[in-house]
Amino acid sequence: MEVAIGIDIGGTSTKIALVDISGKIMAKKSFSSHAPGGADAFFPNLSEAIADLSGQFSGEFRLAGIGVGAPSCNELAGTIEGAANLPFQEPFPLVQLLKEAYNVPVWLTKDSNAALLGESRYGSGRGIQNFILITLGTGLGSSIMANGKLVKGGSGLAGEAGHIRVANNNRKCACGKTGCLETYVSALGLKRTAMALMAEEMTESDLRAYSFEQLNAQLIYEAASEGDTLARQVFEITGKVLGDKMAELVAIFEPQAIVLAGGVSAAGQLLIDPMRKQMERELLEFHKNKVRILNTSLATNEAALLGAASLVWDQKKSVPVS
Amino acid sequence: MEVAIGIDIGGTSTKIALVDISGKIMAKKSFSSHAPGGADAFFPNLSEAIADLSGQFSGEFRLAGIGVGAPSCNELAGTIEGAANLPFQEPFPLVQLLKEAYNVPVWLTKDSNAALLGESRYGSGRGIQNFILITLGTGLGSSIMANGKLVKGGSGLAGEAGHIRVANNNRKCACGKTGCLETYVSALGLKRTAMALMAEEMTESDLRAYSFEQLNAQLIYEAASEGDTLARQVFEITGKVLGDKMAELVAIFEPQAIVLAGGVSAAGQLLIDPMRKQMERELLEFHKNKVRILNTSLATNEAALLGAASLVWDQKKSVPVS
Repeated sequence: MEVAIGIDIGGTSTKIALVDISGKIMAKKSFSSHAPGGADAFFPNLSEAIADLSGQFSGEFRLAGIGVGAPSCNELAGTIEGAANLPFQEPFPLVQLLKEAYNVPVWLTKDSNAALLGESRYGSGRGIQNFILITLGTGLGSSIMANGKLVKGGSGLAGEAGHIRVANNNRKCACGKTGCLETYVSALGLKRTAMALMAEEMTESDLRAYSFEQLNAQLIYEAASEGDTLARQVFEITGKVLGDKMAELVAIFEPQAIVLAGGVSAAGQLLIDPMRKQMERELLEFHKNKVRILNTSLATNEAALLGAASLVWDQKKSVPVS
Repeated sequence: MEVAIGIDIGGTSTKIALVDISGKIMAKKSFSSHAPGGADAFFPNLSEAIADLSGQFSGEFRLAGIGVGAPSCNELAGTIEGAANLPFQEPFPLVQLLKEAYNVPVWLTKDSNAALLGESRYGSGRGIQNFILITLGTGLGSSIMANGKLVKGGSGLAGEAGHIRVANNNRKCACGKTGCLETYVSALGLKRTAMALMAEEMTESDLRAYSFEQLNAQLIYEAASEGDTLARQVFEITGKVLGDKMAELVAIFEPQAIVLAGGVSAAGQLLIDPMRKQMERELLEFHKNKVRILNTSLATNEAALLGAASLVWDQKKSVPVS
């Protein structure tokens, strides 16, 4: 059978999967994007993971191609450059390396675009011509579908809603700027908000037992689910900040839906309720009660993998069969 | 010869023009959108202006259709509703009224969309696949071209960048919200900023001779051109606020250009210099020095008229000739 490899390079881990044309994941694996050795160690780690994956999959297969979603990539050059959360300081020629190693077509797009394609083809975005996808991982990725087409921007660098400004926010961002949305709305943002709240409030909280290094979004989510007041407040603040900025995006685009994906979206209503409340409060009259907020219907973090793999199938379709 | 009527309904005045297919304006006219009598008086005034226009044009013509650009319109219903700066409180059935009166096809789109189509077909946006149009009149209109197509949103109500939020802005907006971008960046915004500066600063200024009612964007522009410090400061602040929010839009869309149109855009570099400076300061590294800021190349306020009329020609083209 024919399969595609989908690769989703994230700020924390890199996921890879063997995917068939129906969107079925035959085998998958992940490894740390920050393994010792920096950029130099990344490609050998990736190759090893691909070899391991091929071994895991028991069936016979022919590799149709490789699709990659990665932050801050240059689609035309096939390189990753300027990604704030990755150890790739220089343009990293990933497409070339993969082509040389596997001798198949390789497609590269921004991680958030890959996730959007996955949601649009297989997930919550199916059949919706205008939607915004917000991917909440280590950072905040965004991507927009308008008139049924991905908005890529003049040189494929659209979709950086993680770096729009939040009012009165003095948090430094990994990108070098101050006040970016992802300093609040992301896994790291949740942790920073929890730390700031512990500093400001006297509320008792299970979270006070963790160091900054130990704390993570999962622990905050678990504490909030068990009723920890401070942890719940973290999600209230995060949702409110996100809702505020989404109201601005709705004013500009009028999407039919906002789809939330990525690890942090597993928080579900803890995040969506305060987000919706604030967004609706800030919308213009004629935009109110129209925009759905949806969680991804795909398994955690599979949207980008499926979307990356779908680049291979999309491309195959566009080549005439002779 | 065949002509289209283009109508541009603005917060202050309504402009109409007879336009041929090449985009040449054969005759034009304008009247106050706020004539005594409110919504009831508007259609008779419009009809009178159309009759007058037809009289002005000496040649024989056949009317191919009417295209209208208007704020806050419902394209599907053919009505104007909820426009903050117009005396039309209820859904105003403009398309139906025009069809009944003139018995030709009538097309309605948002004023900012009409302007975008005009810029894209005849103006500064020619050949640019991804651009943002900011129309600065009584309010701030916005419209986006992505992948060569107008971004209309789920129900034609996209393009309300006039109502995105400016940090630490407590100005009430005509829309009922507080802190909207157009409370700074618009003809009225300039006036409000001038008034606020006169209250805060001790600087001598020619503008101090005018009441709020007397003052307008043209007077502030003239004073600034003659070196009036306070008037120049008004444009500095306005440009900075606009540049700040445009940096956010660039992060999301990565347009190749931002085109400024509408009466206030005549201020040119007085507005563009501080806008560019602030926008570039706020952009992500890989977005810097890429986005052009262009002034409309069309005569003041003609973009929306031409774009509205072009709806007629676009539609004619899409109907097969048998």
